[in-house]
Amino acid sequence: MRPIRAVIYGVGSMGALIAPMLLHKGVEIVGAIGRNPAKLGRDLAEVAHLEAATGIIVDDDAPQVLGTCGADIAVVSVGSLVGAMYDHFRVCLENGVNVITIEEESLYPWLTSSSLSAELDELAKRHGVTLTGSGIQDVYWVKLVSGVVGSMLQLERVEGRAQWNVDDFGPEVAREFRVGATREAFHEAVSGDGWYSPTVRNTLDALAAELGLTVERSHARVTPVLAAADARSKSLAQMIPAGRVSGLVEAVRIETREGPTLEFEMTGRVYDQPLDADTSEWLIRGEPAAVRLANAGYSTRLLTGSIIANRIPDVLNAEPGLVTIDQLPPARYRPLPLSDYVRW
Amino acid sequence: MRPIRAVIYGVGSMGALIAPMLLHKGVEIVGAIGRNPAKLGRDLAEVAHLEAATGIIVDDDAPQVLGTCGADIAVVSVGSLVGAMYDHFRVCLENGVNVITIEEESLYPWLTSSSLSAELDELAKRHGVTLTGSGIQDVYWVKLVSGVVGSMLQLERVEGRAQWNVDDFGPEVAREFRVGATREAFHEAVSGDGWYSPTVRNTLDALAAELGLTVERSHARVTPVLAAADARSKSLAQMIPAGRVSGLVEAVRIETREGPTLEFEMTGRVYDQPLDADTSEWLIRGEPAAVRLANAGYSTRLLTGSIIANRIPDVLNAEPGLVTIDQLPPARYRPLPLSDYVRW
Repeated sequence: MRPIRAVIYGVGSMGALIAPMLLHKGVEIVGAIGRNPAKLGRDLAEVAHLEAATGIIVDDDAPQVLGTCGADIAVVSVGSLVGAMYDHFRVCLENGVNVITIEEESLYPWLTSSSLSAELDELAKRHGVTLTGSGIQDVYWVKLVSGVVGSMLQLERVEGRAQWNVDDFGPEVAREFRVGATREAFHEAVSGDGWYSPTVRNTLDALAAELGLTVERSHARVTPVLAAADARSKSLAQMIPAGRVSGLVEAVRIETREGPTLEFEMTGRVYDQPLDADTSEWLIRGEPAAVRLANAGYSTRLLTGSIIANRIPDVLNAEPGLVTIDQLPPARYRPLPLSDYVRW
Repeated sequence: MRPIRAVIYGVGSMGALIAPMLLHKGVEIVGAIGRNPAKLGRDLAEVAHLEAATGIIVDDDAPQVLGTCGADIAVVSVGSLVGAMYDHFRVCLENGVNVITIEEESLYPWLTSSSLSAELDELAKRHGVTLTGSGIQDVYWVKLVSGVVGSMLQLERVEGRAQWNVDDFGPEVAREFRVGATREAFHEAVSGDGWYSPTVRNTLDALAAELGLTVERSHARVTPVLAAADARSKSLAQMIPAGRVSGLVEAVRIETREGPTLEFEMTGRVYDQPLDADTSEWLIRGEPAAVRLANAGYSTRLLTGSIIANRIPDVLNAEPGLVTIDQLPPARYRPLPLSDYVRW
């Protein structure tokens, strides 16, 4: 049995986190694609803080890398939104390379980017490969919640709340969240450009699909979190004066044709208090009983990496196409080398 | 499409709870089997507090009922331990009737009753039907825990703790737990007869199988819970004087060949304080992060009933044999009539 061969597509904060996890699980890294001039031409080991040199040089020529390295799968951690990622996904699929991505909309893009989803699905099928989005949402905000609902006769409402540290995900996310801006600038940006962050909406779309529910309407609301005292953003390497934006709360409510309402309020902010911690809390109302589900003590960032690793065999085993997590079993514990779980 | 036809096998506390849940999900009840002389000959509606008469009379002749009523499945809620339930299961299987049971050892009986398990498996296969054990353990103590472990790279230890109200499960369980006995009588009974309650051990056996781990050794410890003040046991309809046994704590630790340790401490006792509540709390230690999983706000008894209902299509769709939950996907939400989920 040969190892799985992977390309690290995007060598930022998350790509650098996932690379050693894959090596630990017996995956062979056969390529690394980046765009930051400070990283190009360097061994992946330097960029991802690995112990030993890999011989894999960070390259910005994606078609060249993907066309020659013989990868089974690309781990794509580049940016947000299917539209912005389309060409990155396309070059993988056209080279017969499966894709797993932390891009948030890809968790369930069928409703929010339906024509791009259909194109990616068709492209993946044509090349006999699979594209799947995963991350913390997959396990903690979809499959565990669905697991609880699976114990109930009648669902009335799901109310979720989660929090994570913006500083854990690199400067791009902090800038996207307007960390450091004034309240006025935040509102101006949000009301001027509109606001669409795919994390919350697409998580609920995935949850609805998982539960066999049909999305009819969705309402989103985004509000800034203001620093109570001067705080330091590690990812931006700058101080956030008290009263400036240190993160945001995004709340989405989905109404379904079948009746149940799905609500999720997600806070991403710079942690500035000693007890700040990642949490995921759900109240699931229905018959015969309401149930609380809470997870704590974990790191959203680290578990996003390990979930991506554990999902790789599922992606390689899936039918070709855009395969969203509602079509996959829950992520499983993979104590053996990941290639042992692949039906080659 | 025709409805699923079910027999309520055991019309005690749990059978009476499950019957209306099945009717609510479009299941046709075609038989009811009991042994309590006070219930025999009465309409199931009286015994299960249903609104309208069903025409189904509680009968103690199991072979007669199962041989003539054309049931797809029997919901068996009679007692504990595979050995004691063997003849009840056998008469169902021999009549070509699938079985779902709350009997706790059946959740994963392969290790604790291996020869009986093999016999039941063979018998079920011969008659083309399936036998599965489920209940609160299935969702809250196995599949959700496994869901969390599925987000981790390396498991070190699972530490679970759960509590439920002995009074919720009828007088048989309260008597089995020695509710009302003196501390001395409890210890004498436990050390004299030995103690084997299948709930905790077999839950961990199921969890190990679910995680792909091999059980090497198990250690069990049972200790009484003593009433802090005079308390009333509803199920026994008697007072428990302060200092007498009001329940017990059963703790099992399993060591696995692969390394991870699984521990579970379950408290079943008469609730005698206003804030007493059912809880399930797990600390899952490993890499890249330890994770807490907590469920609360629910009723163990009610959710055991609804989980049994939601599992029925899985049992009817499964391959013939003794099929334990590690071989099944997680229980799913079933908003439509249960027959809609059966591959007839």
